[in-house]
Amino acid sequence: MSEDLFASTDSVRSSRQLRHAKQVTFPGPFPLKHGSVLPEVTVIYETYGELNEKRDNAVFICHAISGDSHVAAHDENDEPGWWDILVGPGKAVDTDRYFVICANTLGGCRGTTGANSINPATGKPYGTGFPEITIGDIVEVYQRLVDHLGISRLLAVIGGSLGGLMTLDWARYFPERLAGAVVIAASSRLTSQAIAFDIVARNAILNDPKHYDGQYYDKESGPAVGLAIARMLGHITYLSRESMVRKFDTNRYTGRKIDTSFETKFSVGSYLAYQGDKFVERFDANCYLTLSMAMDLFDFGETCEELTQAMREPMCRWLFLSYTSDWLFPPFQTQQLVKAALRNDKKVSYCNIQSDCGHDAFLMENELDRYGEMIRAFLHNLERDLQQESPCEEPVPVQTHSHFLVEGRRIDYEEIIKLIPVGTKVLDLGCGAGELLQQLKKQRHRRVSGVELDEISVLRAIQKGLDVVQWDLNDGLEPFSDKQFDFVILSKTLQTVRDVERILAEMLRVGTRGIVSFPNLGYYKYRRSLADSGRAPRLDETSKESRWYNTKDVRFLTITDFEDFCREKGYRIHSIVAIDTEAGCAVTENPNLNADVAIVVLSDTCTDHD
Amino acid sequence: MSEDLFASTDSVRSSRQLRHAKQVTFPGPFPLKHGSVLPEVTVIYETYGELNEKRDNAVFICHAISGDSHVAAHDENDEPGWWDILVGPGKAVDTDRYFVICANTLGGCRGTTGANSINPATGKPYGTGFPEITIGDIVEVYQRLVDHLGISRLLAVIGGSLGGLMTLDWARYFPERLAGAVVIAASSRLTSQAIAFDIVARNAILNDPKHYDGQYYDKESGPAVGLAIARMLGHITYLSRESMVRKFDTNRYTGRKIDTSFETKFSVGSYLAYQGDKFVERFDANCYLTLSMAMDLFDFGETCEELTQAMREPMCRWLFLSYTSDWLFPPFQTQQLVKAALRNDKKVSYCNIQSDCGHDAFLMENELDRYGEMIRAFLHNLERDLQQESPCEEPVPVQTHSHFLVEGRRIDYEEIIKLIPVGTKVLDLGCGAGELLQQLKKQRHRRVSGVELDEISVLRAIQKGLDVVQWDLNDGLEPFSDKQFDFVILSKTLQTVRDVERILAEMLRVGTRGIVSFPNLGYYKYRRSLADSGRAPRLDETSKESRWYNTKDVRFLTITDFEDFCREKGYRIHSIVAIDTEAGCAVTENPNLNADVAIVVLSDTCTDHD
Repeated sequence: MSEDLFASTDSVRSSRQLRHAKQVTFPGPFPLKHGSVLPEVTVIYETYGELNEKRDNAVFICHAISGDSHVAAHDENDEPGWWDILVGPGKAVDTDRYFVICANTLGGCRGTTGANSINPATGKPYGTGFPEITIGDIVEVYQRLVDHLGISRLLAVIGGSLGGLMTLDWARYFPERLAGAVVIAASSRLTSQAIAFDIVARNAILNDPKHYDGQYYDKESGPAVGLAIARMLGHITYLSRESMVRKFDTNRYTGRKIDTSFETKFSVGSYLAYQGDKFVERFDANCYLTLSMAMDLFDFGETCEELTQAMREPMCRWLFLSYTSDWLFPPFQTQQLVKAALRNDKKVSYCNIQSDCGHDAFLMENELDRYGEMIRAFLHNLERDLQQESPCEEPVPVQTHSHFLVEGRRIDYEEIIKLIPVGTKVLDLGCGAGELLQQLKKQRHRRVSGVELDEISVLRAIQKGLDVVQWDLNDGLEPFSDKQFDFVILSKTLQTVRDVERILAEMLRVGTRGIVSFPNLGYYKYRRSLADSGRAPRLDETSKESRWYNTKDVRFLTITDFEDFCREKGYRIHSIVAIDTEAGCAVTENPNLNADVAIVVLSDTCTDHD
Repeated sequence: MSEDLFASTDSVRSSRQLRHAKQVTFPGPFPLKHGSVLPEVTVIYETYGELNEKRDNAVFICHAISGDSHVAAHDENDEPGWWDILVGPGKAVDTDRYFVICANTLGGCRGTTGANSINPATGKPYGTGFPEITIGDIVEVYQRLVDHLGISRLLAVIGGSLGGLMTLDWARYFPERLAGAVVIAASSRLTSQAIAFDIVARNAILNDPKHYDGQYYDKESGPAVGLAIARMLGHITYLSRESMVRKFDTNRYTGRKIDTSFETKFSVGSYLAYQGDKFVERFDANCYLTLSMAMDLFDFGETCEELTQAMREPMCRWLFLSYTSDWLFPPFQTQQLVKAALRNDKKVSYCNIQSDCGHDAFLMENELDRYGEMIRAFLHNLERDLQQESPCEEPVPVQTHSHFLVEGRRIDYEEIIKLIPVGTKVLDLGCGAGELLQQLKKQRHRRVSGVELDEISVLRAIQKGLDVVQWDLNDGLEPFSDKQFDFVILSKTLQTVRDVERILAEMLRVGTRGIVSFPNLGYYKYRRSLADSGRAPRLDETSKESRWYNTKDVRFLTITDFEDFCREKGYRIHSIVAIDTEAGCAVTENPNLNADVAIVVLSDTCTDHD
């Protein structure tokens, strides 16, 4: 068995010295949300990089349940940090650029006031006498630290897992104190499944006879078995089924020989035993109980209405990230938050990163080229917001069906832009890397947003300074409210979707006007192809992927077909721009015969009477 | 909180009397697969219904980890059984028809020899001195019981979860002693994730100070905390995330007040506490360790080759069932078994039942109309095999594209049947409810099998006496070996698949000949429609779902297109039957213009030189 088996994101050593850690104590009384009061609160924190003159480049990082203030190494000789892959000079969270702050959380066991701290009233550790805290209390302490550092507004707060919950509460309770929020692998509240694991973990600790009702600090040993069992359960939920197969299945029956009281028969068993024992060395059982309960009690809202309400106050720009194989904080939960933000017209980007690493993916290098770069681009966008700059405009290669390209120009884009009055709110469905949106943004529209399925395209669009949400159009437009936009665009996409009726109904629900562009099967060359050669027309002869068996175009329609359809559905057609892309010009005479592309502006007449 | 919260499939009461249980003791020595020997084995079992004169109507049911011999109530006054919904007079496993046997497993704690039994050598309970057993040992004991009952061949063995593993091993070790096997929610071996949960459970029991190295039988109490924790974990894995939401989320913060040492703060917490405590009353911790380890050690093969090898010996007809939301024994694992059986040319049916109830679905009523009816139909098919009868032939309404229907006749079926010589092996892709297969079966073909995605169609096909596997053609034909069939049929399906190239390549890999039928866009009426009316052709004018925006046909091709395609791919066309379904006749002159349907026989010329 290779050493690698025991590699884990939990790389923090128990014995390390936090050489760069600083300390501040806030005198009490410090009231907690559930009514108790702490006599005082001490915070251990570390900072990286320099606060600039305007004091507007501070990024606060919130750690997960087993983390601490040591997010990254301060220099070569320093101990590794828990997020070294993301934070440091030149990295996504670039400490040459930003002033990065990370503090041990309230209730944690690494120096900040928690159950293992001395209660000034008794001179003994709090133990289970430490009051029940909430994520809101944690954020309150963090904000005091930020005040203490003389920062009136953070550039961003970033957090994954428990840290993601903290980020949400920061935006909720201090809406004007952060410009941006990056919420990773988090949710509005835990699933009952996730809570169930926490409950079993707490039961294991509390029913360990060596817990001694929380006052084990003067005993020979504490609830090591219970805490180790809790940690084992944690590790199972942090990994995905796939990553466990990869990690353990080649050697499944061969456990590594380690000195432990736990089972080591299977390779996964020796891993769990090792992780459990190691955690006991560096973590405090009572602190684990405190944070685990705070997590389970976190509730940003359950129903659509509650979530929408909770998302109303925050003023920041949002970046949400989830991971496809995360089953502890499954993507659908992050999507609920995204939807709530969108319904409130917030500036929000979202991506569900393709990964088989489970919940731990946000701590791993595998998909850093995507989530790391998204975070980097998002932070740049926040800086530009401050400077009111427009984003850097890199030339981006246009990837598109060539039947929309005329001498390198997207003449359909040009026509679409002409159709949209300045100062409106625009949503582009299937926006790709944001080429059209970028052009619209230059026109000073009130709001431009995009929806796109492809992960890399989402990244490219964020890099263009845009707000883009990853979403599958086949699932409708649930994240958006009725008539939230003036224009909703569906360009060169209609012919590729399975559920045409739904997507058109949805776009006209969400937008006052819809703009649809599609290739016209009625074009005389297509008609001739079928009639004369007895072969199915190829909408784009220059592409290899335009054959009947491999084209993405699965809906074949003519302009007349589309007109028939609108008539049947009661949709109103406001205008049709017909184009002969070969000739590079608009078509006015018999467009169904002479145009190969049509751009149609339409609306749901039931609600639109102009 | 309603009482329903605590409703569980674990309905067995600790105090019940097994009034109908019988007992048999087999004198030893009884050698176990791992080398140990038991001095004797006692088995507790129950039977239902009557063994018929031929002694060929016996169905053996294997229970899951916490089950026992009491599979069903014997009469109105009897205690409920753990599978009452499936077993009883008139039920799917009909005790008016079958002689049903269920025994407590070797290693269990309900009377059959296990860790809580007295070791004759010491006069004390075995405790952890009970040897490590395997599923093979369990099945060996079951088979001895069947011998004892004078049954030389079982009609079927049925088991879910741990019982499914037993069923697999029964077929492996006693291939000629069962006619059919029903394997539910099981796999060739546990995932590392599933093993990990078992390991944490065993760690909780073994590290409970009251385990006393297994000799707790004379103590005041045993490892109740450890066993309860194990059971809580089990319950989490038996439920799906969705079913937990349904069960607990309406009242998530309100735990029910019960007398327990465990946390009851959340509704899911009080449920887990209740289930944990209740289990301790009726189960033995050492027996749990024994069975949990036997489960984790079960290995029917990991790689494709190993699985194929393991599936070679069994002679029975198979029915495999999985549940879409089962994450303990996820469907892909059952599918690996199905593939191994198919590669060995076994008679096998399979369905992945749509359910959000998780692993426990097989014990629940929700989807009984599907899995129960599949089991019923499968048992009927086994009876018919014995009697060499052909299945009852109910008239089945033909559901199909009407452009294949001529005066109620499927003339394409008639043509396809003519193309296939008698005595061959035929696979029908997208076989629906098995209409064509049923007709082919009557022709006394060597083997007829079907693949179908729709669950209800799979049920209907099994009810016709067929062997049908639920499979998505978009995933290729991985379950089948190269040239496993003489003919592979893809009728009226080509135009609906996204990945045309793959499915055709796959069918020609698996079959010596492929038979493909599809609507011909070159038909003169379709050409005219586009050329004259400027509208996309409708392949089936009579259907409401034949419009450009709602048709399932997403590939448009002419016979010439298909010929071009075959030429490019190097496929050889052996014959084309062109039909004008309107005229109800074959077309010989210019089929690309005059036929609306084509049936093409083709092969991969690389491997076919006739």
